[in-house]
Amino acid sequence: MNELAKKVLAGDVRSVARVIRNIDDGIPSVKDVLIDLYPHTGRAYVIGITGAPGVGKSTLVDQMIAHLRKKNKTVGVLAVDPTSPFSGGAILGDRIRMQRHSLDEGVYIRSMATRGHFGGLTQSTRTAIDVLDAMGKDYILVETVGVGQDEVDIVKNAHTTVIVVIPGMGDDIQAIKAGILEVGDIFVINKSDREGSDKTLSDLRLMISMDQKKHDEGGWKPEIIKAQAIFDKGIDDLLVEIDKHRDFIIKTKGNLHSRRQPEKVREELIEMIKIQIMTQIMDKLTRTGKFEKAVDLIVKGKIDPYTACENLFSD
Amino acid sequence: MNELAKKVLAGDVRSVARVIRNIDDGIPSVKDVLIDLYPHTGRAYVIGITGAPGVGKSTLVDQMIAHLRKKNKTVGVLAVDPTSPFSGGAILGDRIRMQRHSLDEGVYIRSMATRGHFGGLTQSTRTAIDVLDAMGKDYILVETVGVGQDEVDIVKNAHTTVIVVIPGMGDDIQAIKAGILEVGDIFVINKSDREGSDKTLSDLRLMISMDQKKHDEGGWKPEIIKAQAIFDKGIDDLLVEIDKHRDFIIKTKGNLHSRRQPEKVREELIEMIKIQIMTQIMDKLTRTGKFEKAVDLIVKGKIDPYTACENLFSD
Repeated sequence: MNELAKKVLAGDVRSVARVIRNIDDGIPSVKDVLIDLYPHTGRAYVIGITGAPGVGKSTLVDQMIAHLRKKNKTVGVLAVDPTSPFSGGAILGDRIRMQRHSLDEGVYIRSMATRGHFGGLTQSTRTAIDVLDAMGKDYILVETVGVGQDEVDIVKNAHTTVIVVIPGMGDDIQAIKAGILEVGDIFVINKSDREGSDKTLSDLRLMISMDQKKHDEGGWKPEIIKAQAIFDKGIDDLLVEIDKHRDFIIKTKGNLHSRRQPEKVREELIEMIKIQIMTQIMDKLTRTGKFEKAVDLIVKGKIDPYTACENLFSD
Repeated sequence: MNELAKKVLAGDVRSVARVIRNIDDGIPSVKDVLIDLYPHTGRAYVIGITGAPGVGKSTLVDQMIAHLRKKNKTVGVLAVDPTSPFSGGAILGDRIRMQRHSLDEGVYIRSMATRGHFGGLTQSTRTAIDVLDAMGKDYILVETVGVGQDEVDIVKNAHTTVIVVIPGMGDDIQAIKAGILEVGDIFVINKSDREGSDKTLSDLRLMISMDQKKHDEGGWKPEIIKAQAIFDKGIDDLLVEIDKHRDFIIKTKGNLHSRRQPEKVREELIEMIKIQIMTQIMDKLTRTGKFEKAVDLIVKGKIDPYTACENLFSD
């Protein structure tokens, strides 16, 4: 077995950090480590936490860590920021808030910022979850900022997805998008002492009741929880609800090993194929100078990009 | 020349609708139309409008259309929704608001919802912009919902990017993410009669002043505009500012043909290569049954996904 993999399995945090950094940077040799870790995954419970900027996700995560630690559960946190390749660091302020857990060996917190090659952040997050799982963390909290497609893809790696909203964010049904609604297992109305809290609650209830499909299939009916994370209110309720959802998954799917579900395996494999093939192709097109030649012809207006792309594969 | 392309160039809306639908659905033959349209692009001015759900983007777009029409400018609108593959239609409510323009021949409004194959929404949007450009629209407004990476990628196709925020959305600097800040040319504080408007203004000012890089390079300094779109307040200011930014681009870059800028050409070509190669590879792997065989082995726990992916390319 790979030495680094051995150390990760023994819970060595410096080795874990190194492996996740290698994943982030897209270092090919990390694959050997991941192959060795893979048989030791599927044990941790993964919770995704998402919502628009400013709703208090980090404070909520911070409180969840504290509650889980009281129950003697170990916790891994991945803070994923899909927009940060531009200038990075925006999420740093939040990390500081979680500092009170930094000396606790039962907690491991890591930011994932780089997008990887060819949009591989979903895949990087998936493998980083595996690493924290293999190192023995009981719970893994994956926090993402935003409400876009990347965030939806990322939280799809979780067993339970928690959507955080605040009162008064939007006047209309658009405030929580259909796509987000469908991935949400539990909704938290944070800062629920604010004006408009009851309106948000009834809007959410309406939208959940409209989501007929889930009901018809005897599926999970998302719960809504009012919270004030900063005052530690509603966190107990949230964890009780997460436990209920966990029981529901075990009852309906037989186990928690989501990476063995055909749908998720297909998605992951396509993502891996994309990264692998694009790395190979772009490497070749760059080395032979074909890529820059095509760019130059387009820039000069001598060819349209559609024909240029065709030509790259026809010679 | 392709018959459909001819009709698009003549401004036939049914043909335009058909071409955009084909782009959305990833129909390969649409490429021939796009090749014929390409020489007729680069004339329209493209404005990206983005921001979190509920900030009033659609109302703002609706007012911008009205103002541009008063100046006898023709307008195309693309409403892009990266999260909608899940259940679609969430954006519909907004379209209804724009209905007052539906009988105006100078306005063409289209939603783009499908993600295309292998994450090609950015590319689909780019080509749809070309179609509206070739059909002769003076202005193209691209509205996206959300604050994630997809939205950032999509608005990068615009000449001018407008970021819409509302007062009191977030307590901290996180409310407007670093990545969003960097793509924003103009910031609109909508619903500016709300409490916290001045705080949002000073926060934004601070962030813009911190963005040293742009200043150092003699770049564009983003302007902040207070608006109440629903009462038609601030729209004139916004359009004046957009004109200023347009002049700035022409002064610094010589022209508006952004699809001829090497950076953008590179991005677009990589995106096209990805879609082309993934379509080919997945087609082959599916036809030969190799893909499903790999999925099956992973599901049964007989192989890890990393090795399975390697094997797909080694035989």
